[in-house]
Amino acid sequence: MSHFPNKYHAFICTQRRPDGHPRGCCTSKGGGQPLFNRLAEKVTEMNLWEKGVSVASSSCLGFCKFGPLMVVYPEGIWYKAETVEDIDEIVSSHFANDTPVERLIVTPSKA
Amino acid sequence: MSHFPNKYHAFICTQRRPDGHPRGCCTSKGGGQPLFNRLAEKVTEMNLWEKGVSVASSSCLGFCKFGPLMVVYPEGIWYKAETVEDIDEIVSSHFANDTPVERLIVTPSKA
Repeated sequence: MSHFPNKYHAFICTQRRPDGHPRGCCTSKGGGQPLFNRLAEKVTEMNLWEKGVSVASSSCLGFCKFGPLMVVYPEGIWYKAETVEDIDEIVSSHFANDTPVERLIVTPSKA
Repeated sequence: MSHFPNKYHAFICTQRRPDGHPRGCCTSKGGGQPLFNRLAEKVTEMNLWEKGVSVASSSCLGFCKFGPLMVVYPEGIWYKAETVEDIDEIVSSHFANDTPVERLIVTPSKA
């Protein structure tokens, strides 16, 4: 059992729900596709694919109230990333320098 | 660092690329949205959400030639799941009984 071939595999929720939906969605909270686009752009720009950093957009990650959400495996670190600056900091600090961004970490729970 | 709140977090690629694209896509190989729909249905049917099994669809997971792909974190087990029967077996054996389905495991690499 190994987490290779990826050192970090990050997923950003790009789920969209209709306006007024009781759960809302990461997109309506300012997250979603634009943040994923930035994430992919930054990872490419810093040449991190070659260092084992993989990123993808995903459907709902659950825990909507903690969003906009990103999860990073295999560590299982969850981020509430709301701006492109947040994304840039996660890429530079966590993915390029192995230092998670504490101020953005959330701990989702079902309760 | 913990992988909670999910015991298993599975992502299935539902990327679509145009016909004739050199990389193809998991959808063109028989995977994609229908398999994700089945995965979500089966997990719901077996009441596994409550046991910490979360599933999502995702954009490209890389390693297209090994697809149609599913990855299960935090273990980092990769599956080539091609049919609804494959999906059902992964859910019943791996997610419900903690026994990965060896015959469907692949080991993607960049080489």
